[in-house]
Amino acid sequence: MESYLNSNEIIKNSLKSMKLPEKVRVFDTTLRDGEQTPGVSLMPDQKMDIAKNLSEIGVDAIEAGFPVSSEGEQESIKNITSLGLDAEICGLARAVKKDIDVAIDCGVDSIHTFIATSPLHREYKLKMSKEKIIDIAVESIEYIKEHGVIVEFSAEDATRTELDYLKEVYKKAVEAGADRINVPDTVGVMVPNSMSYLIKELKNDIKVPISVHCHNDFGIAVSNSVAAVEAGAEQVHCTVNGLGERAGNASLEETVMTLNMVYGINTNVNTKMLTKLSKLVSHYTGIKTQPNKAIVGENSFAHESGIHAHGVLANALTYEPIDPEIVGNRRRIVLGKHSGAHAIKSKLSEIGVEVGEIVSEEQFCEIVERVKAIGDKGKIVTDADVMAIAEDITKRTLKSERIVDLEQFAVITGNHVLPTASVALKVKDKIYKTSELGVGPVDAALKAIQAAVGENIRLNEYNISAISGGTDAIAEVTVRLENQEKEVIAKATGDDVVKASVEAVIDGINKLMG
Amino acid sequence: MESYLNSNEIIKNSLKSMKLPEKVRVFDTTLRDGEQTPGVSLMPDQKMDIAKNLSEIGVDAIEAGFPVSSEGEQESIKNITSLGLDAEICGLARAVKKDIDVAIDCGVDSIHTFIATSPLHREYKLKMSKEKIIDIAVESIEYIKEHGVIVEFSAEDATRTELDYLKEVYKKAVEAGADRINVPDTVGVMVPNSMSYLIKELKNDIKVPISVHCHNDFGIAVSNSVAAVEAGAEQVHCTVNGLGERAGNASLEETVMTLNMVYGINTNVNTKMLTKLSKLVSHYTGIKTQPNKAIVGENSFAHESGIHAHGVLANALTYEPIDPEIVGNRRRIVLGKHSGAHAIKSKLSEIGVEVGEIVSEEQFCEIVERVKAIGDKGKIVTDADVMAIAEDITKRTLKSERIVDLEQFAVITGNHVLPTASVALKVKDKIYKTSELGVGPVDAALKAIQAAVGENIRLNEYNISAISGGTDAIAEVTVRLENQEKEVIAKATGDDVVKASVEAVIDGINKLMG
Repeated sequence: MESYLNSNEIIKNSLKSMKLPEKVRVFDTTLRDGEQTPGVSLMPDQKMDIAKNLSEIGVDAIEAGFPVSSEGEQESIKNITSLGLDAEICGLARAVKKDIDVAIDCGVDSIHTFIATSPLHREYKLKMSKEKIIDIAVESIEYIKEHGVIVEFSAEDATRTELDYLKEVYKKAVEAGADRINVPDTVGVMVPNSMSYLIKELKNDIKVPISVHCHNDFGIAVSNSVAAVEAGAEQVHCTVNGLGERAGNASLEETVMTLNMVYGINTNVNTKMLTKLSKLVSHYTGIKTQPNKAIVGENSFAHESGIHAHGVLANALTYEPIDPEIVGNRRRIVLGKHSGAHAIKSKLSEIGVEVGEIVSEEQFCEIVERVKAIGDKGKIVTDADVMAIAEDITKRTLKSERIVDLEQFAVITGNHVLPTASVALKVKDKIYKTSELGVGPVDAALKAIQAAVGENIRLNEYNISAISGGTDAIAEVTVRLENQEKEVIAKATGDDVVKASVEAVIDGINKLMG
Repeated sequence: MESYLNSNEIIKNSLKSMKLPEKVRVFDTTLRDGEQTPGVSLMPDQKMDIAKNLSEIGVDAIEAGFPVSSEGEQESIKNITSLGLDAEICGLARAVKKDIDVAIDCGVDSIHTFIATSPLHREYKLKMSKEKIIDIAVESIEYIKEHGVIVEFSAEDATRTELDYLKEVYKKAVEAGADRINVPDTVGVMVPNSMSYLIKELKNDIKVPISVHCHNDFGIAVSNSVAAVEAGAEQVHCTVNGLGERAGNASLEETVMTLNMVYGINTNVNTKMLTKLSKLVSHYTGIKTQPNKAIVGENSFAHESGIHAHGVLANALTYEPIDPEIVGNRRRIVLGKHSGAHAIKSKLSEIGVEVGEIVSEEQFCEIVERVKAIGDKGKIVTDADVMAIAEDITKRTLKSERIVDLEQFAVITGNHVLPTASVALKVKDKIYKTSELGVGPVDAALKAIQAAVGENIRLNEYNISAISGGTDAIAEVTVRLENQEKEVIAKATGDDVVKASVEAVIDGINKLMG
């Protein structure tokens, strides 16, 4: 797809005086900043799997972790360096001999070493003079270079440092042998014009590649990264899903796509894999992206309102900036109180109910009314709701027959009771009964169902959306099931989380066998 | 707190040539764009409550909805206009007489009317000529003005429209009587420099206030809104939590705080209420913000890594851009694999275990090792874990005695079984037994506990964090309990969601009564 720079007059005019680079390096720090997200801790095999996927998607460098932080961390990084990935593998180290030694011992290609330079950090954290900080930086860089390892040097909290002093630090770092300098906006205080000003100032003095590392405390890390590129930065730091301490870091997917689509600036990232990578990281870290997350969110290409759905059905680009396939995401038309006739007709067709054939135009108007009425009550309108309305209005059975039906199920749990479930399933007129234990009632119930349907169906993923409110709040359960032929996703909602889980799985099994 | 513009050299230098306004108007569209988030549908009383809170926090205008979309919507808007709030109440209307009539009938102060102007929308959606579109816009604006209602006019998809044509549309709109013009970046294709260019171009021709409405498809809606203000826009559209169709809209909290803190530009918004408002909207819409959401997220001011926690304990501003109190949020120090000695010592002290008194320096080193070891295994380290380690190492009971203990509990549910729970609680040596029904097993269990402890303890909030992984994944339950004197928060984690819920509540009751 062509970048907007070629087709959009406003963008073309506004950027025409800029000398934009053809390509930018992507330095991914999901395994370091991302893992420092409070509450997140990745197991060594998870870190390896993420590293493999990052290299495969095409990031240029992977900051694999902070070796000195723990022994487990060192093992993880050694595992990653031994994989022989295409991406450069980097380790973080304070400008301290011990940190550097441990990092070198992990076999990294490069070391990202840092020391803070801002007045706040000098006074309250380091308790060091300006001169002392430069001496330590220089010593550490020289020490790393003696070991033949690439050095990327950061002046921590650069964006809150006196400009002249900052320039001096970076100049001395380059003289000491730093291969790249990185500019961290440690607490995310920059705005695009400030970042662009700073990079231009540094460009005057620094002849090695300049990188930026933006935090998202005000929600503008991606813009700041892009502004740095406009001003001449050759590398951007980012994390998948924008993970990181506090409000996180610049998001990989948003930064890459903005550079790509708006500016026509390439990276080595294969954008079609972005959504899959986002889901993998979400799964391992336990940090789900919000539905309205840009590029990779569940709703990034979802449309509910009548006007939008109508437009999208005529030409998707009316209400989408790019085709979701470019980022491996998908389009969804959601029904609710804002839906119009176009979206409802499209949904009916999707579930096999054609307007003009199975339902008349008059009946269709009644369906539209009733769909909106459900929405007005504050409910999500599911496919099953639409089907039930259509069946009620036509007085006909429209649903295809279910292969597996849940006849009975019961679960029990407690503090002196083993979580136990019993189920009776009807599969093509035959009843199968089983009972199973589990770590909790949901686990027991799904194990019992699995035992009843046999080994050829696998539950690959199980999600409960966050529940907030009273204990009678609605839980939404999503399951991903697989057999030899295909994979399906099924959902169920309800105020009993056990029942909703069982319903979702039974529904999924029917989809698989249907 | 002073804005960075006064104290940060880089920001000061970079923005010094700009003529920044003292104040900007905030137009909140949570009840319109926000409610159009796929899957979200608010009940009339929820919309009223959000409107009240928006007016109280100080937004200048509230887009209360899209009146023509359904009868329920009209009722909701009438309820809001009848509240007599300080904020201007606005209704959305296509440039169509029917839409405008319905909006006027709702008693709104202003109407936000729109018609699309981009080539894509002209060809695929409207099937209208450029001239026809201008005629319709002018007619509609004149029609609204005849009714004495304020008009805000939007050229939908403005940022993908030919610049000369766009200027002509807006000029004609102003001539027809539009009180404000709004520039929607309908599919979020702008970058800050482009937005700023566009607003400057329009400023040359348009003498009424200019507003912007930015979508977040590339994750830069907030920056684009701020860039518009740099260029002279007098009003920004935003939504709480950045809700909206697809990737949502510019977030209210991020836009206001960036303007405020970086530029020193005021709004009428009382920033201390931002986190509370975010939670209210989250609760009603069911869309939880991700933990790393800027400003109002659970992690926005949370610190885990040793370096950060150490810095924050010395001076919070080393690793925080602003004091969390400014936005009504709170600081959290989280323990895990990245924790250092400083954070662990602070946590011990918090739970009443002083290093040097209850544990020796040597024992403290052992505690640090064991905390990191739990983190290395991919687990979150809770207060209870730290207490258990300290007890194990000192061979002493450090925990204060529990007032309420759970002796027994059991729950049962199924498809032909009423969800039922029984509990036996020991309160100061006396046993209380009860059983209760509920909508699900968790609800039944908590109702039974509530019945046993009596009416003076109220469960105000119940949360399960999103669960992803297998059905044996760890669920984290958070509850908020209240009696006459105080409110407490308690947490429990476990693979059995029912047990974890019960444990959290029992723990909370002990905190309340302790």
